[in-house]
Amino acid sequence: MLQSYYEYGMEDTAVFEFFVRRMPEHRNFMIFAGLEQVIEYLENLHFSQEELEWLERSGRVNVGLVNRLAEFRFSGDVHAMAEGTLFFPDEPVLRITAALPEAQLIESRLINILHYQTLIASKAARCRLVAPDKTLIDFGMRRAHGAEAALLAARANYIAGFDGTATVQAEQDFGIPIFGTMAHSYIQAHQSESQAFENFAHSHPDNVVLLIDTYDTRRGAEKVVRLAKSLEKEGIAIKAVRLDSGDLLDLATSVRDILDDGDCGDITIFASGDLDEYRLAELIDSGCPVDAFGIGTRLDISEDSPSLDCVYKLQEYSGQARRKRSEGKTTWPGRKQVYRRRADNGRFESDLVTLASDARGDGEALIVPMMHKGKRIEPAETLERIRERSSDQLASLPRHLTALDVSAKRYPVEMSPGLKDLAEQVDKHFSCD
Amino acid sequence: MLQSYYEYGMEDTAVFEFFVRRMPEHRNFMIFAGLEQVIEYLENLHFSQEELEWLERSGRVNVGLVNRLAEFRFSGDVHAMAEGTLFFPDEPVLRITAALPEAQLIESRLINILHYQTLIASKAARCRLVAPDKTLIDFGMRRAHGAEAALLAARANYIAGFDGTATVQAEQDFGIPIFGTMAHSYIQAHQSESQAFENFAHSHPDNVVLLIDTYDTRRGAEKVVRLAKSLEKEGIAIKAVRLDSGDLLDLATSVRDILDDGDCGDITIFASGDLDEYRLAELIDSGCPVDAFGIGTRLDISEDSPSLDCVYKLQEYSGQARRKRSEGKTTWPGRKQVYRRRADNGRFESDLVTLASDARGDGEALIVPMMHKGKRIEPAETLERIRERSSDQLASLPRHLTALDVSAKRYPVEMSPGLKDLAEQVDKHFSCD
Repeated sequence: MLQSYYEYGMEDTAVFEFFVRRMPEHRNFMIFAGLEQVIEYLENLHFSQEELEWLERSGRVNVGLVNRLAEFRFSGDVHAMAEGTLFFPDEPVLRITAALPEAQLIESRLINILHYQTLIASKAARCRLVAPDKTLIDFGMRRAHGAEAALLAARANYIAGFDGTATVQAEQDFGIPIFGTMAHSYIQAHQSESQAFENFAHSHPDNVVLLIDTYDTRRGAEKVVRLAKSLEKEGIAIKAVRLDSGDLLDLATSVRDILDDGDCGDITIFASGDLDEYRLAELIDSGCPVDAFGIGTRLDISEDSPSLDCVYKLQEYSGQARRKRSEGKTTWPGRKQVYRRRADNGRFESDLVTLASDARGDGEALIVPMMHKGKRIEPAETLERIRERSSDQLASLPRHLTALDVSAKRYPVEMSPGLKDLAEQVDKHFSCD
Repeated sequence: MLQSYYEYGMEDTAVFEFFVRRMPEHRNFMIFAGLEQVIEYLENLHFSQEELEWLERSGRVNVGLVNRLAEFRFSGDVHAMAEGTLFFPDEPVLRITAALPEAQLIESRLINILHYQTLIASKAARCRLVAPDKTLIDFGMRRAHGAEAALLAARANYIAGFDGTATVQAEQDFGIPIFGTMAHSYIQAHQSESQAFENFAHSHPDNVVLLIDTYDTRRGAEKVVRLAKSLEKEGIAIKAVRLDSGDLLDLATSVRDILDDGDCGDITIFASGDLDEYRLAELIDSGCPVDAFGIGTRLDISEDSPSLDCVYKLQEYSGQARRKRSEGKTTWPGRKQVYRRRADNGRFESDLVTLASDARGDGEALIVPMMHKGKRIEPAETLERIRERSSDQLASLPRHLTALDVSAKRYPVEMSPGLKDLAEQVDKHFSCD
């Protein structure tokens, strides 16, 4: 496409918008995440000498294109919702305004970045909503789809309200708190479980979290009580025990009793293993005495809804609005703005999608400038700031949309009269000959 | 864990095995993929100065551990099935034999690599089985979970029999054939669809594949017929048209008629949009005249079964077999071998899992040495060789397991008497006190 654009001089300004076409299954809302990684990608985008040589050798493109790519940089504008903002289908969340070849080249990677973090933040928020007072830790690295997914899942989960992750790199890269316990292999490598517990406590006196289900969970808890007494003399406190298998409600209740009866009321219970927001809700509803949850695979692959129907579409080229009209995939043309109104109780009431050139609507304008001429406008937001925003937004969600079940009453998103008019005009203008 | 291992001198030889505990939903078999990336990871594993300084500053580990990590290299052995081999639950597919801290440290990333490629190859093979004569292209980059997933999905899909990918990097990194068409935005950016087709053909005379569903698919096909005649005079042939929306059976049938009636019988039809093996089977069964399929999101996220219940477990330490006995998660102890027997018709009949030290079983021994003392034993296999193996293996699968539906008759995997005895002995030995 780029070769053709350059050959035919199609380098006027193009406007693309990223949005989700349909609400994913099992969801009432989505949380926008991944903008920071898009900005970093756009700031650093270029072709290396090696890539250019490979392209030329491939014989797939002409020298003219290779020469243009050698000097390729993203020099356009980005407007977007702030990370951590709630959004709904058909709302543009990010807009690229750039020379057509620039705006086109970035499509696949831009979608790849925004899709995954938005997918995961939207899932993680549901865990936080059903477990507002529990410690929630991302345990999903091993079965996330690749290294980047593992790392960025930790970020998306944290934005949506998780307390931390077991992915160590996420602390180094993003400052996300990390939590670690031990593997069953640690216990198995020792000649006895008691010896494993004791060694671990002495090696990590400040973070004694003991995995007690390797052989028999209740007997594991009894050993913890005995060990707690001897460690007390040395000034070492056991912080928590972890369960990772079996009937969690049943086992956690027994373990809580064993610990309390043994004067170990301060030791908290950490649970993991096949958890997600549905299981969390069940356990919490039934009064399961677990204080912290490690949530892994089902979270980091968004198991019940593993993709978003998100797209990046051309809405304007060379000053003229454009529109795709493929069956079932029609888009709204032009560059747009989203206004969000609150009800008297402070909760979100409805959104209005307008043309950016329309008169200001009621409520907060959600699409704001993020990059100008290829440079970011403001310094990167801290992750804490984004996490606070996400928390504020979730607190403002209409109450019926905070449930796990899909609400029959969808959040209202309306298209402005100006936008509808434009769509009609575009249809008339493009006879598609 | 490493800090504790080093402090207590637990550096004897450990044996870990990677395996899948349960057949994933909607699957009759799995295809092993990702070994090459594991070997590369193990060959290059070390801590950078920056990482060591960060670890030390974090205050989370002691200086003794930081010093050990500064010289950390993987110096163990790897045994595994060859990539492209079919396998089943409870069969070890990879075995690590190394000093306990080395074998432990690599756990999360090793699982992360093997899980994803095996997941995707196992899904892609189903597409190949239902469409043996069609061209199949991986279109999943944009909604794969992150950049690494996009790239490694292309590799896994190719191993399992796909013809290529739209992820350009996969040709540069792995030599996988790449296929590209155009985006709807390319069409939309032009004042008319006809102009877009014509420009594209002139820019890419060797690869004229035209996307015809942006406005009206049948009218798009009519334009292609007209354009074909004028391009013919210039010696340019249109290779294919692509459909990406609507009722594919209905539209492809109409488009085929339009092309044939217009003397364009050589132009093939390429289809994409929400495809997977189920949809492929439906379209092919109903005689849909599509020659090539671009399969994206549902493939690269393995939508109907987005994770494998795969684990990496300690099976032996310091010469003694070990076993995890957590509820529902019991493992088979010791270092193991898998023998695969064929029936008289040449198809696979049954597998026997034995202890590696047992007498040789019937059939082919699937677990072979891959690395010794941290170095690979043989040069890396070519992707073509792995792809051939996968194809041979699929051709040897019992016929009832090649269907999309889950067979009630599972592939037989038996544990040897020696292995069962060892499990009993281990249970007696570890009283878990």
